Amino acid sequence: MPGEIDNNIITLTTDFGLHDEYVGIVKGIILSRRPEVSIVDLCHTINPYNILQAAYCIEAAFPFFSAGTLHVVIVDPGVGSARKIILLCAHRQFFLAPDNGVLTCILKKGVCEKAFEVTNSELFLHPISGTFHGRDIFAPVAAALASGLAPEKLGKEIPLSEPTVISLPAVFFDSHSNSLSGNIIHSDHFGNLITNIHRDDLKPHNDEQLQRASVSIGSATVCGISKYYAAKSSGEIIALIGSRGYLEIAVNQGSALKRLVTTNLEQIPVSVDFGQK
Amino acid sequence: MPGEIDNNIITLTTDFGLHDEYVGIVKGIILSRRPEVSIVDLCHTINPYNILQAAYCIEAAFPFFSAGTLHVVIVDPGVGSARKIILLCAHRQFFLAPDNGVLTCILKKGVCEKAFEVTNSELFLHPISGTFHGRDIFAPVAAALASGLAPEKLGKEIPLSEPTVISLPAVFFDSHSNSLSGNIIHSDHFGNLITNIHRDDLKPHNDEQLQRASVSIGSATVCGISKYYAAKSSGEIIALIGSRGYLEIAVNQGSALKRLVTTNLEQIPVSVDFGQK
Amino acid sequence: MPGEIDNNIITLTTDFGLHDEYVGIVKGIILSRRPEVSIVDLCHTINPYNILQAAYCIEAAFPFFSAGTLHVVIVDPGVGSARKIILLCAHRQFFLAPDNGVLTCILKKGVCEKAFEVTNSELFLHPISGTFHGRDIFAPVAAALASGLAPEKLGKEIPLSEPTVISLPAVFFDSHSNSLSGNIIHSDHFGNLITNIHRDDLKPHNDEQLQRASVSIGSATVCGISKYYAAKSSGEIIALIGSRGYLEIAVNQGSALKRLVTTNLEQIPVSVDFGQK
Repeated sequence: MPGEIDNNIITLTTDFGLHDEYVGIVKGIILSRRPEVSIVDLCHTINPYNILQAAYCIEAAFPFFSAGTLHVVIVDPGVGSARKIILLCAHRQFFLAPDNGVLTCILKKGVCEKAFEVTNSELFLHPISGTFHGRDIFAPVAAALASGLAPEKLGKEIPLSEPTVISLPAVFFDSHSNSLSGNIIHSDHFGNLITNIHRDDLKPHNDEQLQRASVSIGSATVCGISKYYAAKSSGEIIALIGSRGYLEIAVNQGSALKRLVTTNLEQIPVSVDFGQK
Repeated sequence: MPGEIDNNIITLTTDFGLHDEYVGIVKGIILSRRPEVSIVDLCHTINPYNILQAAYCIEAAFPFFSAGTLHVVIVDPGVGSARKIILLCAHRQFFLAPDNGVLTCILKKGVCEKAFEVTNSELFLHPISGTFHGRDIFAPVAAALASGLAPEKLGKEIPLSEPTVISLPAVFFDSHSNSLSGNIIHSDHFGNLITNIHRDDLKPHNDEQLQRASVSIGSATVCGISKYYAAKSSGEIIALIGSRGYLEIAVNQGSALKRLVTTNLEQIPVSVDFGQK
Repeated sequence: MPGEIDNNIITLTTDFGLHDEYVGIVKGIILSRRPEVSIVDLCHTINPYNILQAAYCIEAAFPFFSAGTLHVVIVDPGVGSARKIILLCAHRQFFLAPDNGVLTCILKKGVCEKAFEVTNSELFLHPISGTFHGRDIFAPVAAALASGLAPEKLGKEIPLSEPTVISLPAVFFDSHSNSLSGNIIHSDHFGNLITNIHRDDLKPHNDEQLQRASVSIGSATVCGISKYYAAKSSGEIIALIGSRGYLEIAVNQGSALKRLVTTNLEQIPVSVDFGQK
């Protein structure tokens, strides 16, 4: 049975941006009802409507928060329509989001304990707008949870198979050519290109093999997977395992995005070639 | 008689941006003097010197904060000149700002209880610079108010008619053509175009009439006022009542700004045509 | 002997940007371990890898924080390499940063009391990545200090001469032409151009001389050093002493960056000519 929220941290991940009062209003509602809360902004500049980007963002961040943290993830192109709102209990933490796949990475880890559909409209602000459920539903529900309301009071429990899961771009291993292929899924603030090839995908290979591997990104090739950015000279392209645990293409003290990307990020193939066995 | 600040929330609305230490210094002064305070950023990217934009922002946000909240609004092109600084007591909340019209929407609601001119320089940081009153005046005054200082101690009370009010773009109803005309006043982070036509301006018309109304923005026309963004297909232009309560033109999962605006926002006419009665 | 951290304020200055979960993770680790802390963002959009910009930013901000504040400054192109991490005790405050010169302005003030090399890996998150020491080292060390850990427990004390100092752009006085020459070091959010000519560099000159001085920036010339932005008409170029205490070139209600800068900021000469004595 999931416990109640037993710390005072609420995180926010949205595509609301920082140019309007939207995020501030959400915080105002939460703090006006539950002043003890510490609200942490994970990101408010998820690309508008980009569910996949938000899914990877919350996956990368939640492990560094303590038990009882409530993560509110609002990337919600279907706001006001019939899409559901859900609460997941997983890893002794809580995840409140529209049911559109934004919690896919949490669901796929296979550690969800319970899921609830949020329907208890007594908790909502009225009248409920058709355009800003962050304010009218997510914020007051988050405040209620942080004040000790049991998840069961939000609405009925639903099977763990019910929440929406979106397909994540896949990584392929070709045993014939002894190579892995994947995609770029995100460009960070430094212009580092983060792929979907995880450290675990590289695990069958030892350190020597990784240092000899050839990493291709579009028409560029990098030799070896390094340990840190400054392992190559300033301005050189480098491949390494980034902080999310995924293979990353960077330029030491520069921007791989500016250097290598001229088309849609998602369309650039990435491969790691381990050579003849 | 206005009570004292009796909660621990201070909001900040500024045009200081997030690329410099300016906002952090304001917070440092407040928290160093009053550690219990929760500071909420409403917006720090008001377009530089845009008093009107800030006026609409604080109007949209304050109703979601609890009694006793102190809102500090610093868009202050006249910093260092002879312009006054004022504190308004309204809606059981407090508003501290330069007296340049940035609190116009609060003043126009007709619910202000008291106004004070802030002149008690014992509260300020010295020497007072000519360029950063956010640091030298607003921050220490906000900390003093949050610590329980009575508004009367800031300076003399002034008549409610004295603070500066700026003219807001008006909405016109033409009974001959049975149509409303207004302007775009803001483009939000999603590229939604927010007009000055308020829900109340549409009130004489019933739901059926709203669904049949024709909304024009520049040379584009939208049929009907919808309830939520996803009511039209992805990529379609849509008109609806946005979260601020004003008519808004959006593109479902896209940007109306990019689609429709090639000139100055403020110069694009918006009208709602209800057809023959 | 430096005391321990005796307030609950931690500031963050980084080049992490706001488009990723990086800052949120640092906050999550700190707050999960030390919930009482107030975290203040000084700036997260230091230009990537720009040590000098961060050095000036923390110099401008720290005086407005109370004794015991811990400032964490992470602009760290050498992350994962052999560069050290240091803690300085100065001004009864604490500064935690990579040892790459980012604390130069603090060190140059000659008021540092003690310096420590941070080597106690028991405090770090394991495994330590090669790419994100903000998460793996700085955050848990900051939480430990805020929880009362004595600086001595971080690692061995080092001489105050040991931390890296970078050279700051210099100001020259030419007694023959009776003029000061310097550089632009930063353009702020408003497009104000901040130079390295400090108020103290102008001190030998009285108010009348300052009002008659001629300020050159590239090919533009401004007559006199004003007290505040609105001292000139809207749209006019103005020179004044900005909030950091340095000579600043601005355009009243406009952007000096847009008006005057077409090349690299750092290459534009600035001079103040006091005329014949």
